[in-house]
Amino acid sequence: MKQYLKHDPWQIIEEGFNPQVNKISESIFSIGNGHMGQRGNFEEAYSGESLQGTYVAGVYYPDKTRVGWWKNGYPEYFAKVLNAPSWIGIRVNIENHELNLATARIESFNRTLNMRTGLLTRRFVVILANGKKLEVESKRFCSMAQGEVGAISYTLTALNFSGLAELTLDVDADIINEDSNYQEKFWDEVSKDSFDQSVIVTAQTKKTHFLVTTGMSYQVQSDGKLITPENIRVNMREKYAAHVFQVQLQQHKAVTIYKYAAVLSSLNHPQEKLTERCRAVLDGALHVGFDELFKAHAYTWQRKWEECDITIEGDVAAQQGIRFNIFQLTQTYTGNDERLNIGPKGFTGEKYGGSTYWDTEAYCIPFFLGTAPPRVAQNLLMYRYKHLAKAIENAGKLGFTDGAALYPMVTMNGEECHNEWEITFEEIHRNGAIAYAIYDYVRYTGDEGYLADYGLEVLIGISRFWSQRINWSDDKKKYVMLGVTGPNEYENNVNNNWYTNYIAVWTLRYTMEVLNHVKSTSAEKWKALQKKVVFSETAELARWNDIMANMYFPYDKTREIFLQQDGFLDKELFPVSKLTEQDRPLNQKWSWDRILRSCFIKQADVLQGLYFFEDHFTEDEIRRNFDFYEPMTVHESSLSPCVHSILASRLGYHDKAYEMYLRTSRLDLDDYNNDTEDGCHITSMAGTWMSIVKGFGGMRVHNGKLHFNPFLPRQWKSYSFRLEFRNRIIKVTVNNEGTDVKLIAGEHLTILVNGNERKLGLI
Amino acid sequence: MKQYLKHDPWQIIEEGFNPQVNKISESIFSIGNGHMGQRGNFEEAYSGESLQGTYVAGVYYPDKTRVGWWKNGYPEYFAKVLNAPSWIGIRVNIENHELNLATARIESFNRTLNMRTGLLTRRFVVILANGKKLEVESKRFCSMAQGEVGAISYTLTALNFSGLAELTLDVDADIINEDSNYQEKFWDEVSKDSFDQSVIVTAQTKKTHFLVTTGMSYQVQSDGKLITPENIRVNMREKYAAHVFQVQLQQHKAVTIYKYAAVLSSLNHPQEKLTERCRAVLDGALHVGFDELFKAHAYTWQRKWEECDITIEGDVAAQQGIRFNIFQLTQTYTGNDERLNIGPKGFTGEKYGGSTYWDTEAYCIPFFLGTAPPRVAQNLLMYRYKHLAKAIENAGKLGFTDGAALYPMVTMNGEECHNEWEITFEEIHRNGAIAYAIYDYVRYTGDEGYLADYGLEVLIGISRFWSQRINWSDDKKKYVMLGVTGPNEYENNVNNNWYTNYIAVWTLRYTMEVLNHVKSTSAEKWKALQKKVVFSETAELARWNDIMANMYFPYDKTREIFLQQDGFLDKELFPVSKLTEQDRPLNQKWSWDRILRSCFIKQADVLQGLYFFEDHFTEDEIRRNFDFYEPMTVHESSLSPCVHSILASRLGYHDKAYEMYLRTSRLDLDDYNNDTEDGCHITSMAGTWMSIVKGFGGMRVHNGKLHFNPFLPRQWKSYSFRLEFRNRIIKVTVNNEGTDVKLIAGEHLTILVNGNERKLGLI
Repeated sequence: MKQYLKHDPWQIIEEGFNPQVNKISESIFSIGNGHMGQRGNFEEAYSGESLQGTYVAGVYYPDKTRVGWWKNGYPEYFAKVLNAPSWIGIRVNIENHELNLATARIESFNRTLNMRTGLLTRRFVVILANGKKLEVESKRFCSMAQGEVGAISYTLTALNFSGLAELTLDVDADIINEDSNYQEKFWDEVSKDSFDQSVIVTAQTKKTHFLVTTGMSYQVQSDGKLITPENIRVNMREKYAAHVFQVQLQQHKAVTIYKYAAVLSSLNHPQEKLTERCRAVLDGALHVGFDELFKAHAYTWQRKWEECDITIEGDVAAQQGIRFNIFQLTQTYTGNDERLNIGPKGFTGEKYGGSTYWDTEAYCIPFFLGTAPPRVAQNLLMYRYKHLAKAIENAGKLGFTDGAALYPMVTMNGEECHNEWEITFEEIHRNGAIAYAIYDYVRYTGDEGYLADYGLEVLIGISRFWSQRINWSDDKKKYVMLGVTGPNEYENNVNNNWYTNYIAVWTLRYTMEVLNHVKSTSAEKWKALQKKVVFSETAELARWNDIMANMYFPYDKTREIFLQQDGFLDKELFPVSKLTEQDRPLNQKWSWDRILRSCFIKQADVLQGLYFFEDHFTEDEIRRNFDFYEPMTVHESSLSPCVHSILASRLGYHDKAYEMYLRTSRLDLDDYNNDTEDGCHITSMAGTWMSIVKGFGGMRVHNGKLHFNPFLPRQWKSYSFRLEFRNRIIKVTVNNEGTDVKLIAGEHLTILVNGNERKLGLI
Repeated sequence: MKQYLKHDPWQIIEEGFNPQVNKISESIFSIGNGHMGQRGNFEEAYSGESLQGTYVAGVYYPDKTRVGWWKNGYPEYFAKVLNAPSWIGIRVNIENHELNLATARIESFNRTLNMRTGLLTRRFVVILANGKKLEVESKRFCSMAQGEVGAISYTLTALNFSGLAELTLDVDADIINEDSNYQEKFWDEVSKDSFDQSVIVTAQTKKTHFLVTTGMSYQVQSDGKLITPENIRVNMREKYAAHVFQVQLQQHKAVTIYKYAAVLSSLNHPQEKLTERCRAVLDGALHVGFDELFKAHAYTWQRKWEECDITIEGDVAAQQGIRFNIFQLTQTYTGNDERLNIGPKGFTGEKYGGSTYWDTEAYCIPFFLGTAPPRVAQNLLMYRYKHLAKAIENAGKLGFTDGAALYPMVTMNGEECHNEWEITFEEIHRNGAIAYAIYDYVRYTGDEGYLADYGLEVLIGISRFWSQRINWSDDKKKYVMLGVTGPNEYENNVNNNWYTNYIAVWTLRYTMEVLNHVKSTSAEKWKALQKKVVFSETAELARWNDIMANMYFPYDKTREIFLQQDGFLDKELFPVSKLTEQDRPLNQKWSWDRILRSCFIKQADVLQGLYFFEDHFTEDEIRRNFDFYEPMTVHESSLSPCVHSILASRLGYHDKAYEMYLRTSRLDLDDYNNDTEDGCHITSMAGTWMSIVKGFGGMRVHNGKLHFNPFLPRQWKSYSFRLEFRNRIIKVTVNNEGTDVKLIAGEHLTILVNGNERKLGLI
């Protein structure tokens, strides 16, 4: 755990430079806009520890799989979000001394990320080895208003001299992915060009042949006026293009470089138009200028915050934490493109490849449902709908037939990327989460039309998978599901994981409900779909009904709890509190077999089911299971605490709920897991939001109506959150005096607070 | 399956050249002598498909582990038997045309391995592109009489011309391991030298710093007389040294090159003496000459065959198969060096690293007990005894304490090399096999002194491991063992594998028996050992007794069979006969999860236990379990059929026994598993021997006496085997008239045939 950042409600502030944690800072100070992202790297040269990272959404590379022992069925490659050509470089050289924060003497340094406006600012004063003292202010943003545009304002002030500064402004496509399996470079050069005050480099990914065209233009402003630098030198080498020129620095007079970047990819443009359009975007940016670009960007952020802000009174650290989570999620995914999804590190790092996990369905969709218009969550559903054929193909590789669909554990384009058998082939509960997300979306938005058009087809594919994956046990005289890994990945290849069995049977039931609904409301659509997927109502439904009636669920009659899996009670049961410092975290201290045969739980498993299907169980049932499993849970997944926080809130365990919330909200800002340098934990940030809104705020949707059962953590004075719900924006404020709910935008609405109806917007 | 080799009782014969299977032939025509080995590569250039392989016992390289996803506890490296400097090269060039069987026109070709004398011969007639027609006869052996010596006689006869042949005789240390994880070369040059008619190259392995000094000397014989070639040119480059010279070929007059190799390693000599001693060995070989060297070698083989031959009348293929197995095993391990062991490929390939698996204890030790003096098997036990400290360290890495020992799954020097969690950490039954081998050795040899001196210390370490690995289940009110992989590796991470539970409890019981025996017969030794291992008789024995009394063994009361593991009966039970061609072999056709949740068994698991502990069970018990499990067994491990063959023999299922025998005996000769090109399945060859001796012959040892319950497979006229037993050699012959047992050497002896005593050697 590290605490070097200042607490502030709207800003992330590093006061004084901390080179030893610079890679962590680079992750935290990342900026993005859904189309692209950029780690908090420096514009100028830096020879210290750094992970350079520029990312373009949807551009990936299929890196050849690396395993110790090949198993039949493993994928050939792992699709990786790519470290893309960099557009931020502004090298500064004063009389043959390069500005480099790793070697210069630093008099002052401040790095600030303003989350309200999405602006990254650095201000520092340094003395170079030749005694030249410089002040620098750099401002940078990725435009939320215009996704292909990035802009930098870089201001130099000579403090103890006047003289020439040599500046190098570049586009650098000679990039390596740190996470490459075999130390290969993933980019080839296609073309590069230089004209006027611009360069453009087009690079292509190997194998996938994505083209990314990165251009930059610039302006120089001295003494408040735009000037044209003289003697511009063009510096080109393979995959690299730069302009080098000199400007005259007058002591105490600021010179500002405005660098505009345009980042276009072949996902969005015909290949042959890329350069031309890149040039047009650059021309536009030059024409509008930095200040106006920033205004449009900041205005978009303002609108976003109106939908999704959460305020906390009485705890600045918590306020900063939740805003940081909302900020990062919002700049990772904007919901404009159904081909995109949310990688575990977003645009803040390359680890784990940046592909899609079940995190999206279980954690991110509720966040986007609550903080953005329905199309955002819907595009995440459509991403899976478009991958249905590949999910059927994927199931086919594992021996399933007749349209059974298994969605991949990790994917970019619908193909499986993961290569650990106990995960790839066995952590199949992910399929249930994808079905659940459809249910969740329809419940929240009321968009039942989605079911007939897309949802049902996906549900049928998933149900067919469950139906084939489950087998009859002659011994138990019940249906069983063998050889799975549940959400608690500290158990592998178990039989009858209660959660997986439950969500499988629920999927069958929900699919049948939806099928009947579509059949009765859109008979024509049902007929067309039935034909398309060759669905046998008699045979398939009979099997599903039989499974629903005769499924086995492991249960402990003595304790009256659901058992995580068969044989769970053969373990020695200890609470986490009996572990010592030396034991934690288990995944770094214990060998894998020891973890597997221990009772300790990585993340919510039975409790994940109780969270998803809360309405199916009595409060006492939930309480007994929570009391049994929570003490054995080590929360070594960033996705674990939020579910526990929500359930603890539900059960009135307010201190436990708050404790669990604390573990998620500042995970990256305080580097709890000692791995933020690899990037931020983007998907788990949605869990933090849920801990407040669904946990403390007790938000639920029943029968199309919003319900709240809020409490105020005793550590806070008040909190409020905003929600997007069916074309309204409402604001819920909870303090010692009670709960206030206001309609901010949209038509009147009836909600329930603690079970009592309130009509909003009618007075 | 391929059948291109001629059937012959004593020889392996390839008639006509089969380049498409040359790598398979290279494996099969491998020669070795326990100290070193050589695949059946050609002396002359060959540009076709080939796996060059020269191996020196005990010389290995720790290749950096390659995994997809690192688990805590994985070893840093995988120790690999190295492809070592090659000594066989004799390049032949006739008027600027190199002799190369991949490009020359082949008129005739014969490759023969004489197993009786351990001689590899090739004879061929080729026409080079320039029309020159040559006859070549090459003979090669690795001396069984003098382990560091290899010798080649290479005879050239010009058939349609007279002219100059340029010959290049080399030592080549510029070698790459095909099985390298990261395409690195593992050897560095230390020195090279040339003098008279010799070159010597010393190379060193990276990291492990083993030195191997490889020298070669040669003689040239023309027209029956040794001649000295003129104008010898020395050709040296890094890691390579050769002599190049010309000889005059007269049409139809043979010229013979005798090439002698000396291969010395720093395991057996001080580093600074290596070159000097290498030169001495070469001088000795030159002095003795090829024919005399061969005589000594062939005599040693003759003596070996007297101890271990098996003859089969009426089935040449079976005769050839069993002799091939005995031949390969004998040339892999001679039992002279307790630092050595038996890699799965011996000296015939580099795949799987050539380290030690539990195959040695379960399969090879019975073979060497029956075919060699006790010191050979004893050295295999001593290998493990010397690794006890590392086994304790290994267990420590997995969280075990107080002297608990877990022997590695795969090892070279006692350290674990394997890196699949379900094997490395969970396939712990190997520990039981190491205890069982001690029992087996003492039972066969009567050498009880071994127990006090070495055996008991190992047994205590292993028993301590079991005692800690087993835990109390409050649910079952029994001791259980969770999270293991049994011998059937088509189940991973199961609870209460019957075989593992059984051998664990047996180890505890046997350790206590041995402890009491040592205590009463060698009280001083016990006292010293007790002090050394800090053994508490009260606490430790109490726990062991408690486990022995209260261990849980999964059992099906309905079928009255032992259950392979908890939950086995939840599977859909099918016989292998219901699988289709497209399903087999499962490990190439099915994804891993499908294999795991199926009932299909890779190799004997419950049945391995019934084989080991036959005396503990009634024939009916064995039969019920055999009848249940055998039909579900796919035998996709080469170690599987032999155990089934032995049990089938025991149960009177003679045809099944014969069917299972057939699957092992010609596994490599007919390339059953399509992988002989990587090397021969050396350790499973011991299983073939057991199928005959313990299976068909029904050989057992009870109370220090040899028992036989033989039957004659109806496909054969007769068979006979020889056994080394307590300083005797006996020969057992089984034919339609009955069983004849003869004492060949040693003092008189009482044995039992079908329960009836026979006194041998007294008449």
